[in-house]
Amino acid sequence: METITIIGMGLIGSSLTRAIKQHNLANNLIAADISVDVCNIVVDLGIADVVTDDLGLSVQDADMVVIAVPVGAMAAVAKQIAPHLKEGAIVTDTGSVKIGVIEAIKPFLRSGIEFVPAHPIAGTEFSGPESGFAELFDGRWCVLTPLPETGIKAVEHVTKLWEACGSRVEIMDPKHHDLVLGITSHLPHLIAYTIVGTANELEDDIKSEVIKFSASGFRDFTRIAASDPTMWRDVFLHNKEAVLEILQRFSEDLTAVQRAIRKGDGEYLYQKFAETRAIRKEIIDQGQA
Amino acid sequence: METITIIGMGLIGSSLTRAIKQHNLANNLIAADISVDVCNIVVDLGIADVVTDDLGLSVQDADMVVIAVPVGAMAAVAKQIAPHLKEGAIVTDTGSVKIGVIEAIKPFLRSGIEFVPAHPIAGTEFSGPESGFAELFDGRWCVLTPLPETGIKAVEHVTKLWEACGSRVEIMDPKHHDLVLGITSHLPHLIAYTIVGTANELEDDIKSEVIKFSASGFRDFTRIAASDPTMWRDVFLHNKEAVLEILQRFSEDLTAVQRAIRKGDGEYLYQKFAETRAIRKEIIDQGQA
Repeated sequence: METITIIGMGLIGSSLTRAIKQHNLANNLIAADISVDVCNIVVDLGIADVVTDDLGLSVQDADMVVIAVPVGAMAAVAKQIAPHLKEGAIVTDTGSVKIGVIEAIKPFLRSGIEFVPAHPIAGTEFSGPESGFAELFDGRWCVLTPLPETGIKAVEHVTKLWEACGSRVEIMDPKHHDLVLGITSHLPHLIAYTIVGTANELEDDIKSEVIKFSASGFRDFTRIAASDPTMWRDVFLHNKEAVLEILQRFSEDLTAVQRAIRKGDGEYLYQKFAETRAIRKEIIDQGQA
Repeated sequence: METITIIGMGLIGSSLTRAIKQHNLANNLIAADISVDVCNIVVDLGIADVVTDDLGLSVQDADMVVIAVPVGAMAAVAKQIAPHLKEGAIVTDTGSVKIGVIEAIKPFLRSGIEFVPAHPIAGTEFSGPESGFAELFDGRWCVLTPLPETGIKAVEHVTKLWEACGSRVEIMDPKHHDLVLGITSHLPHLIAYTIVGTANELEDDIKSEVIKFSASGFRDFTRIAASDPTMWRDVFLHNKEAVLEILQRFSEDLTAVQRAIRKGDGEYLYQKFAETRAIRKEIIDQGQA
């Protein structure tokens, strides 16, 4: 690619910028963010050729534009950049939700602009441009959910970009993506936020002991629950249907376990706890552990 | 100590046996397990001076007996060994629940036997004698919940044992222990087992994708949910009151989050998600991350 523009210099956007730089994937690498403060940090980091808070200006020469902002901000960014996109430009994104993002971006793109929705499944509990690193996508999946009208060449370009950053690329239907990620990512984050929130409302003396003895299981949840609140608020608001559906199943299962504890039904509990070991084994067998 | 007997050669018991051996804390180290198969493995591992499946015989010379069996098996073990304990022997345990274990063991111990309930807060998702290692307790907490009648000397002996194995020892009221661990350990395990169980009941094609994309959050839950099913069944059955109480609070909080998603209340979600970051920070600040 001649010119690539990354919009949004959070953990994902700044990591992608670093990876593109490191692997020399663009002759001209432009980093854009609406926050002047963030832009100043990115200038200091020296990870892009050009840094600007003018989104329209940032895309006018771009062959590819990657929108890496929270899902709730996608529409506003698309609206702002659309008139400035050059003919044949490829627009892609990094949103954790796909149907919601397609609905947010697509209406603003004129024909002649290619749109390849994408979701790099990578991240840490840290956020902001300082938290990024070029290896974030190494060996991780990136799911593309092209539309019926998306050109094959555009899909290939986006595939090559992510593969060059170390990712394995998978093509998926956007609705299916939202269901699968609802289970593997959105529900776990929602549960983690909730359990840490429950602990947060305990009396102060118990809370200090919860922190002290957090290594016994709770700690793992606090790491997940330290993820960026804006990003996750937007995920839940934009994948409402799938999240509520899977949350409903989870709640029913939790009620069944609760009843088993109340009734002292050890056989039910043992059975349930023994089954889940098999999934762990499959994850280990597939090298995902 | 002259003679220490460890009953139960699972992850915890076999790790403690290894640690005692490594630090040379007993002149005579006896490992006991009701399973002949387990005993044979322990003989092969060469981690104890004596290995036996005769629990009564195993304790008759012991100055200290550590019962490291699932909480639900504590009473049967106590009943079996009680007549064989020598005068002045110290009995301690490694159960994750303390009120339930005290109720299980104490009735069988005659006066002249010292009982120091204990809970080393350490573990992995693996179980069995092969999974143990001497460093398991390094830098981890061990909580003692002595009874009003427990002699100070006995508490000191058990404290020294765990400190020699690398643990930091904390004295706590048993009821308070069960509440704190209910939050930090029992609820997280219950939630993890449930969420992995929910995924386990999905259609096969979705399930295979859940495993494929498990790195996005779900994976962390599967590790916890791979823990020993017998041990955890017993924990929930023997800490019923505290677990149901904290589970009730969690369910209420989850319902509130669910309603916020349904209503599209982004402000509520953001507020909740931002609060939980503070707990993570405290855990990091206290070196528990």
